[in-house]
Amino acid sequence: MMDKVVVSWQENMHLIAEQPGGTVNIDAGEEFGGQNKGLRPKAMMLSGLGGCAGLDIAAFLKKMRVTVDTFKIELEGNLTEEHPKTYDKVKMVFKFFGKDFEKDKIQKAVDLSVDKYCGVLEMFRQFAELEISVEYIEQ
Amino acid sequence: MMDKVVVSWQENMHLIAEQPGGTVNIDAGEEFGGQNKGLRPKAMMLSGLGGCAGLDIAAFLKKMRVTVDTFKIELEGNLTEEHPKTYDKVKMVFKFFGKDFEKDKIQKAVDLSVDKYCGVLEMFRQFAELEISVEYIEQ
Repeated sequence: MMDKVVVSWQENMHLIAEQPGGTVNIDAGEEFGGQNKGLRPKAMMLSGLGGCAGLDIAAFLKKMRVTVDTFKIELEGNLTEEHPKTYDKVKMVFKFFGKDFEKDKIQKAVDLSVDKYCGVLEMFRQFAELEISVEYIEQ
Repeated sequence: MMDKVVVSWQENMHLIAEQPGGTVNIDAGEEFGGQNKGLRPKAMMLSGLGGCAGLDIAAFLKKMRVTVDTFKIELEGNLTEEHPKTYDKVKMVFKFFGKDFEKDKIQKAVDLSVDKYCGVLEMFRQFAELEISVEYIEQ
């Protein structure tokens, strides 16, 4: 399968990316000569990582008939100092909110994504050290 | 430097990613149980790649006082067949639109991004074979 994206320059540092599912603004912050009109390209990689794992978790929990109030994935990516700046260490914390958690099944959903299905995570593994953890928040 | 992103589950396969510069919807297509309410996570990586190179080009052309009518970066990412599905081959075509192109300087701007500054491209190099080309469209 082939994914296609077109990124078009607008003015100054403002770009628009057309991709499957929508169009998104990209811009640099004011500290880099931009006007903060859109997303930062590197952090889009982290959103893609969280999104990929998040879609897996949503699908697996549904398939396993496991309910939680909600879940979040918090990501932190450490950028190297020298150009080209890349993420060398990435932390992912899967946070599940609810009560009476079916922890075995939830952990299995996370493991299936991390170990087998999440393609973005597999790509990140090629350049970054990943630290992955799971937290349960009773509410 | 540390970049932080939070991806939150909404309902079904719909997620929201909060990241520097904005908030973005993520969703699967209907063929994968989603409702097409947002971007696909893997293709966000391609948008990040085009965005990263695009910001470099915009900045370098400005610094070199080179003007073009506009430019686009077209990206195609080939996904592997087996899970986890990753991009194994990526094509990037830098298209410059205008006339009386200062091709040496434009090529230099592309080379600086590709060879030295674009961190997303450096991350892609770790898992994909990249094919990069430049086209000039007189208008």
